[in-house]
Amino acid sequence: MEPVRLKRDRVVLDTSLFVNPVVRSDFGNTPTEAIESFLSLAVQIPTLEFYMPSSIFKELLNFIEPEKISGDLLTILHQKSPRKHELTCPAFLLYELIEDIRERINKGLRVAEKAVRSVQRGDEKEVIQGLRRNYRDALREGIIDSKEDVDLILLAKELNALLITVDYGAIKWAEKLGIRWLLPNKFKDYLLSSIKRAKLQQVDVS
Amino acid sequence: MEPVRLKRDRVVLDTSLFVNPVVRSDFGNTPTEAIESFLSLAVQIPTLEFYMPSSIFKELLNFIEPEKISGDLLTILHQKSPRKHELTCPAFLLYELIEDIRERINKGLRVAEKAVRSVQRGDEKEVIQGLRRNYRDALREGIIDSKEDVDLILLAKELNALLITVDYGAIKWAEKLGIRWLLPNKFKDYLLSSIKRAKLQQVDVS
Repeated sequence: MEPVRLKRDRVVLDTSLFVNPVVRSDFGNTPTEAIESFLSLAVQIPTLEFYMPSSIFKELLNFIEPEKISGDLLTILHQKSPRKHELTCPAFLLYELIEDIRERINKGLRVAEKAVRSVQRGDEKEVIQGLRRNYRDALREGIIDSKEDVDLILLAKELNALLITVDYGAIKWAEKLGIRWLLPNKFKDYLLSSIKRAKLQQVDVS
Repeated sequence: MEPVRLKRDRVVLDTSLFVNPVVRSDFGNTPTEAIESFLSLAVQIPTLEFYMPSSIFKELLNFIEPEKISGDLLTILHQKSPRKHELTCPAFLLYELIEDIRERINKGLRVAEKAVRSVQRGDEKEVIQGLRRNYRDALREGIIDSKEDVDLILLAKELNALLITVDYGAIKWAEKLGIRWLLPNKFKDYLLSSIKRAKLQQVDVS
C-alpha cells in the first residue's frame, strides 16, 4: 500500500525574520539563535516546506555563524532562485512600476533643490549628509528596489507560497499579484499552530 | 469565389515621426503637413495596417490642426490601446528594470551632491536650473519613463508589429522583447518600397 502523503504548503522567508532585531525577538537574541530556534520548530512540521531565494540566503550568511548552525538547515530551509526566464508578470504592473518611479524621481529632485537652497544657511558637509538621507528616503521607500526583492516576490509566486517579510515594497507587490503574505511578528504563532495541525493530521492518517 | 486576401503587416507609430522637426523633415515642415504626406503614401499600401496607441494619439492632437487633416486619418491610422490586462511580460525584465532604476537613482544623487557643492561658487538660481537639467538627463535618458512609452512597446508586442520610434528607451525594450523597430528617418523609404511591393502583389493576384 502506498504511504499517504500529507498535504504540504510552502513558505518563502525573507532575511528580516532572522536579522532585524525587532522582528526576530520572538526567535532569539542573535541571528544564529533565531535560526536555531526556527529550525527546532520547523522540524516538527512535515506539512510545510520552507524556501529562501539563494540571493537572500547569501545575505543571511553575512549575519550568522554557520559553524554553530545545525545541518538541519540544509534539509529544512531550501535555497532556490525563481525561474525568472520562465515566469511572466501581468503587463499592467509595468504601468504601475513606471508611474511609481516617475513620482519618486520628481520627489528626489525636490529634495535636491531644497538642499541647494539650504547651503547658504548651513554647513556644506551637513547639508550633503542630510541630502543623502532624505534622497534615499524619497526614492527607495515602498518600492521594490533590489534584485533580492524581485527574487522574493517571484519565488513566492512560482511556488504559490506564503511570503514572510517586513519589506513594505515586497508586501505591496504581493498584494498586486495575489500572493499571500504574513508579517514576521506573527510567524511564530503560525509555526506553533502548524505544529498542532500537523499532529492532528497525523492522528487522522494513522 | 472568395476574394484573395493580401498578406498584411502591421506598423505602430510614435508621435516623433510627425512632431520632432528633425525626424519629420522627410514628410513635411509642420506636423499637419507631415501627417497629410504620410496619409497620401499610406493610402497606396493595402498590405499595411497602421496603429497608434490612443495615449500617443492624444499627445499628437496637441501639435496638429485637426480641421486641416483628411478624414482618411480615421480609417488609415487606427487608435488602439494595448490589452494591458491580458498581456504579460517575461519576469527577467523586472530585474533589468530594477537594476536600471538603481543605477539612475545613484546617478541622480551624485548630480544633486555636485549641485550643493557648487553653490558656494555660483549663483543659486543658476545652480538650481543646472541641477534640474542634469538630474533629468541622469534619470530619464534611456529608460522607459512614461505610460505612453509602455503603451507603444506593448501595442507593438500585441500586434506583432514593426515599431517606428526614435525613443532610445523604447528601442532598448523592443530589442529585449524581440519587437521589430525602425528609425523614423528610414520610414519614408520603407513606405515607398511597400507601395512598390503592394503593386507587384496585386499584379500577381490578378
